Amino acid sequence: MKTIALLIAITLSACLTLPAAEGKEKDKDAKSAGKGKLLHVVSFKFKDTATKEQIKQVEDAFRGLKKKITEIKDYQWGTNVSPEKHDKGFTHGFILTFNSDKDRDAYLVHPDHKEFGKLVGPVLADVFVIDFWTQD
Amino acid sequence: MKTIALLIAITLSACLTLPAAEGKEKDKDAKSAGKGKLLHVVSFKFKDTATKEQIKQVEDAFRGLKKKITEIKDYQWGTNVSPEKHDKGFTHGFILTFNSDKDRDAYLVHPDHKEFGKLVGPVLADVFVIDFWTQD
Repeated sequence: MKTIALLIAITLSACLTLPAAEGKEKDKDAKSAGKGKLLHVVSFKFKDTATKEQIKQVEDAFRGLKKKITEIKDYQWGTNVSPEKHDKGFTHGFILTFNSDKDRDAYLVHPDHKEFGKLVGPVLADVFVIDFWTQD
Repeated sequence: MKTIALLIAITLSACLTLPAAEGKEKDKDAKSAGKGKLLHVVSFKFKDTATKEQIKQVEDAFRGLKKKITEIKDYQWGTNVSPEKHDKGFTHGFILTFNSDKDRDAYLVHPDHKEFGKLVGPVLADVFVIDFWTQD
């Protein structure tokens, strides 16, 4: 019975250790350059003439970039619900996560991103973009 | 030996199933209201007269709100590094995560947030805010 107990203990120990080690590895990756994540924060203000269909087309196309451009590690978006009236007429927010400046730069010049630019350009009244490395 | 193998198999199976179930539970929590997360996305443009010390004071005070206001579930911030020139002179980005509109509203009127407003008001040239529920 001692042998069985020992074998189970070893198996259990291995199971419990593996996920923890995996977590540490991810953490190491994220902080490999002593930095957090690079967030690319984009807001769109549409022209008054932009139709619902055109806006939907932009939303779909932006979302589609996540699948086409592997450098985009995470993609979050939504439409403004702030009651604070500091939105300057911007209605859409998009937050893209990159692992490095290099990946963000690759995204900016990516042919699919350029194509997306051609689609949104004519319907946008204004664009606001800041990128930042998350800090503590 | 068969018994030992069976016991190990059962133990292994339990280890492998538990983390998966935990993951599903988290996912259920996040989507409990059929929604994602409520992101409160804030950008600051400082007055030209704002000193480095004043800016540091604002950064520290904003970060401090995370500890004082329990409704803030996550807090990310950083300074602009976008090469795109769509930043309109804004240099700082802050993304606060809330679980509900109610929590965001509680944050907006919280005495510590009001106090923070008094600190930043005099040094800010402009503020940009949009909130959005993350969508697929």
